[in-house]
Amino acid sequence: MTPRSSREVQLASRPQGLPTPQDFALVERPLPDLDDGQVLVRNLLMSVDPYMRGRMNDVPSYVPPFQLDQALEGGAVGEVIESRSDSMSIGDIVLHGLGWRDFAVGAAGGFRRVDPAAAPLSAYLGVLGMPGLTAYAGLLEVAAMKEGDVVFVSGAAGAVGSLVGQIAKLKGASRVIGSAGSAAKVEHVLGLGFDAAFDYKQEPVRRQLRDAAPDGIDVYFDNVGGDHLEAAIGSLRLHGRVALCGAISAYNETQAPPGPRNLALAIGRRLTLRGFIVNDHNHLRGVFTEDVGGWLREGRLRWEQTTVQGLENAPAAFIGLLQGENTGKMIVELAGERL
Amino acid sequence: MTPRSSREVQLASRPQGLPTPQDFALVERPLPDLDDGQVLVRNLLMSVDPYMRGRMNDVPSYVPPFQLDQALEGGAVGEVIESRSDSMSIGDIVLHGLGWRDFAVGAAGGFRRVDPAAAPLSAYLGVLGMPGLTAYAGLLEVAAMKEGDVVFVSGAAGAVGSLVGQIAKLKGASRVIGSAGSAAKVEHVLGLGFDAAFDYKQEPVRRQLRDAAPDGIDVYFDNVGGDHLEAAIGSLRLHGRVALCGAISAYNETQAPPGPRNLALAIGRRLTLRGFIVNDHNHLRGVFTEDVGGWLREGRLRWEQTTVQGLENAPAAFIGLLQGENTGKMIVELAGERL
Repeated sequence: MTPRSSREVQLASRPQGLPTPQDFALVERPLPDLDDGQVLVRNLLMSVDPYMRGRMNDVPSYVPPFQLDQALEGGAVGEVIESRSDSMSIGDIVLHGLGWRDFAVGAAGGFRRVDPAAAPLSAYLGVLGMPGLTAYAGLLEVAAMKEGDVVFVSGAAGAVGSLVGQIAKLKGASRVIGSAGSAAKVEHVLGLGFDAAFDYKQEPVRRQLRDAAPDGIDVYFDNVGGDHLEAAIGSLRLHGRVALCGAISAYNETQAPPGPRNLALAIGRRLTLRGFIVNDHNHLRGVFTEDVGGWLREGRLRWEQTTVQGLENAPAAFIGLLQGENTGKMIVELAGERL
Repeated sequence: MTPRSSREVQLASRPQGLPTPQDFALVERPLPDLDDGQVLVRNLLMSVDPYMRGRMNDVPSYVPPFQLDQALEGGAVGEVIESRSDSMSIGDIVLHGLGWRDFAVGAAGGFRRVDPAAAPLSAYLGVLGMPGLTAYAGLLEVAAMKEGDVVFVSGAAGAVGSLVGQIAKLKGASRVIGSAGSAAKVEHVLGLGFDAAFDYKQEPVRRQLRDAAPDGIDVYFDNVGGDHLEAAIGSLRLHGRVALCGAISAYNETQAPPGPRNLALAIGRRLTLRGFIVNDHNHLRGVFTEDVGGWLREGRLRWEQTTVQGLENAPAAFIGLLQGENTGKMIVELAGERL
């Protein structure tokens, strides 16, 4: 039976600092009738990702800001339950960008069919999806990691960081070091095969990184910015490379945080720091899927997720993500019975 | 007549902050007899360059630090006055790295013959030498400037910066903006053909850069670091590039200066910041000499120098350089009568 309405999470106010539940509103809205070429999708899973915090500010960026009193958007996996498109059939499982709602309506071209037999559905939001390609492209293309490199990644227990470290090992890094925000996460990261890991909340990053990589590092994959970035610059060796992927340490700052005071080291050491967005690297999708799919089948790549139930809890999942409550990919299950 | 001794400038103490005359000592030392394969060179000109400040600190860097109570080193042009090498003859004019002294002794391989008819000798220390290649390689290879780019360069009245801006125009930049440290320098820079220039001491760099490039910049050639770098990051457009060449604003700081607080903009804007040293770009020497030599012959490239007389005044020339007293290349003439 076709639903007449859908719940959606709207942005009720622009967060100051760390978002609060009051910045979000769960609203029920009528669903429009389908136009020609459109599909109706029941969302099964949705993703919360750190980059969404930036879209909650009203500043120009690489994606337009979320609008007040409008539904948020983000990666989701759902099932086609009505179709007025020749290219999609009822029952198709699709990946798309209209998360944060129970039902999504849109032109079929905005939905990409995925194979539910090939991998768990949540993998398409994680290891086989945007976070996976982010890790792969950032490490191998942006930071140009090569065999024998010493690699450091922050946020190493997160969706991206945990893959960066594992891919680095699989691609021949000589040593992989991760930082994470608790002793349990450090244990988890070591269990993934990282050579060393530390809890950045216990001691200054600079000191712990020096202990973990006394001869320095060649690549830093930055998910957090702040003192991690400064410490990494201090440890980078000649021709070292930094992939600037995220700066979660600053996302909720209301004042501009200090920049790395040692950036001038980049001159003598010929360092390259490069910011990137996964969307610029879609040309790697084929080789990425081949590599990562193969490693998954061979059991050589592990991924974790932290799951929260129910659309009404999506804001809490997002706020928790920004505070590091997740290990691996943070997923919100919207329709548990289908899974 | 062969001299028996040579004056040389030694490092008497490691400078704290801005060097003072007391950090240097002018010392007369006996000259050794030549070994087989060596030459004796009377220096005519020597160079003082900002990078030398870093070598006065006792920290590991891309070149070893200067040693206390030893002669300093640096680019120089001289005349062979005695030779025990088949490859060098008396009267040859040579470029080499044993500046800061009246006479230099060394293996002939450390001296490179230059053509005194092709260009004024000081050009081999400037536009046709290390500063010239620095500008050329940094702009075209490190920052990968392309036709139509908007280019900003700091230290625009200096030996490197003045060439960066002119080369940018010659290579098709749509707009070139320079910053310098006085109204007179700004006039000079505008006279070189820059589209805009400003005195960074008058107003915040951020504001002046925004006024000069309201639609943003594509390339920033950084000679100074500090607030210039932060302002440039703020103005860089999508896929913008920074060549990190120098950080003269920090060379005399005894505390680590603040880093750019807006570095996280590099993510969404896909910026690349790359440090470089001219020595890594010797593969460009052929095309550099062809391009720059051609522009000089055609009168399309201008260069200036500030000249100080006498080895005894070389420390003052160097200290003045760090305070921006030069326009164009700072040169010390050691043997005026030859020129």
